[in-house]
Amino acid sequence: MKSFEPYYVAIFTSKRTGEDEEGYGLMDEKMFGLVEDQAGFMGAESFSNSEGKNVTIVKFRTKEEMIDWRNNPAHREAQTKGREIWYEFYNVKICHVEREYEFIK
Amino acid sequence: MKSFEPYYVAIFTSKRTGEDEEGYGLMDEKMFGLVEDQAGFMGAESFSNSEGKNVTIVKFRTKEEMIDWRNNPAHREAQTKGREIWYEFYNVKICHVEREYEFIK
Repeated sequence: MKSFEPYYVAIFTSKRTGEDEEGYGLMDEKMFGLVEDQAGFMGAESFSNSEGKNVTIVKFRTKEEMIDWRNNPAHREAQTKGREIWYEFYNVKICHVEREYEFIK
Repeated sequence: MKSFEPYYVAIFTSKRTGEDEEGYGLMDEKMFGLVEDQAGFMGAESFSNSEGKNVTIVKFRTKEEMIDWRNNPAHREAQTKGREIWYEFYNVKICHVEREYEFIK
């Protein structure tokens, strides 16, 4: 049995303003491309719901590598534009994954 | 400024088989009703994506209270039926929320 190595997730919940959707789409694509080259990146998945909220769950090996991604200059620029234009609100939870289990039929 | 008190989230990612959707809907409603009465429960939100995956993020004040919910007999029964009927797969991450920040326009 593979032993479990704890890691980190950022849970990014957001609601968009609906402004400049094209610019948002381009930025979103660029960020998903960039984060894949970030040291410690382990994967990301996005979801949405009927209230117009979105959640992206981003996995990193360590908290330090997650902070490096937060401080990436292109990501910083996207964060600033996000507050100015794209997001009505967002919430970020920095989480230590202590345990994980899975069922596959 | 309110100081941040760490808490726990369970990230429950799943994909359904598509079998017995009515039974699933009734169970889902029942579970959302039950968990609200569980000590330490702080809220839950569900999302889905275009790959047919769902994620529910459930917040609890402590890990012990989260384990109490996992062991709730009606919830246990739903878990068993979930493996037998409703879920093609699921993944549960037990996470300690160390930090949280928010932006509201």
